[in-house]
Amino acid sequence: MRIITISREFGSGGRELGKRLAEAMGIPCYDHEIIELIAKENGFDENYVARVSESFLVSAYPATIGSHMLDYSMVNNVQLETQATQRKIIRGFAEKGDCVIVGRAADIILRDYHPLNIFVYATQEAKLARCRERAKEGENYTDKEMIRKMRQVDKGRALYHNLLMDEAWGKKESYHLCINTSETEIKSLIPGLVAYADAWFEKK
Amino acid sequence: MRIITISREFGSGGRELGKRLAEAMGIPCYDHEIIELIAKENGFDENYVARVSESFLVSAYPATIGSHMLDYSMVNNVQLETQATQRKIIRGFAEKGDCVIVGRAADIILRDYHPLNIFVYATQEAKLARCRERAKEGENYTDKEMIRKMRQVDKGRALYHNLLMDEAWGKKESYHLCINTSETEIKSLIPGLVAYADAWFEKK
Repeated sequence: MRIITISREFGSGGRELGKRLAEAMGIPCYDHEIIELIAKENGFDENYVARVSESFLVSAYPATIGSHMLDYSMVNNVQLETQATQRKIIRGFAEKGDCVIVGRAADIILRDYHPLNIFVYATQEAKLARCRERAKEGENYTDKEMIRKMRQVDKGRALYHNLLMDEAWGKKESYHLCINTSETEIKSLIPGLVAYADAWFEKK
Repeated sequence: MRIITISREFGSGGRELGKRLAEAMGIPCYDHEIIELIAKENGFDENYVARVSESFLVSAYPATIGSHMLDYSMVNNVQLETQATQRKIIRGFAEKGDCVIVGRAADIILRDYHPLNIFVYATQEAKLARCRERAKEGENYTDKEMIRKMRQVDKGRALYHNLLMDEAWGKKESYHLCINTSETEIKSLIPGLVAYADAWFEKK
């Protein structure tokens, strides 16, 4: 079984790397599909699920889920439920066979499947440039706001990851391979990564 | 120009990885050759050069260099001279063309050549196993002694690296690719790494 997990810093291109790697290997890549499934299964709004599914956010304001207004303690329970559903879904994907899973602490959740765990990172400068490139029409974050957002997202991911397992998110020791995308075009890294992954699984 | 630098934790197999990678790419790998050249050039003992060439050791006892006994302050000057010679030799290798250079802060020294900088690491358990395997006849370190030695060597390397440039040795941010050798046979990683390096240099 070849399962690859991609953990990534916000803006580092981990999602793109995961998608391209999966495509090149001819296996599915699960990323936003997970959000959609959770939303469907629990009857929640996709935006809400996206926001809480791999992070512990402390929201200072009441949140809306579907058509309901919820107070913070309730959000928290719903969040835990969302994450439990997510873990079930991720295990279900792994059961189905070879795949790439982006984020969502899949490296921890699928530990028993002996995945190849990759961490993708970049310099702040490179991440800012990537975020600018991908910004939706009408998005007008300043650099400072964007950096704050990056930090907040990564902090949430780290917290979720580290609560599941006492292993540090983003520390190289927690991964098999760490890839700095700062000076590279992600597309160009794929053939090497495919060969690397093939060899890695072959000796298992 | 394709220059690859391999920084590595003691016992992680970085030297083997460097040698095999260079061989597969058909380019020279410089490792112990550097020591031999420095020793020759400065008339020093190879063992001494090996000990001080990529580390700042604080020796509590007087050292012998060639046939001379030296006190600590003198050793220190000789060490600085050794390292200066080393930097010159490393730049000379880079001038000659494509190569792999193992250790010796080559990532910093050759910065202007835009090398692909790789860091090789492993779990303590894996490093211990590797050290045991490679131990010379008659070497009888306990695990505790071996771990102390690993830490001491890595600390020296970090100190030398960080004094040359304010960038942290062993932090993933200082490298383009970080490879965990714990669960792998190094030989099996080489084809993927060659493809990775080829693509990395191609887009330059």
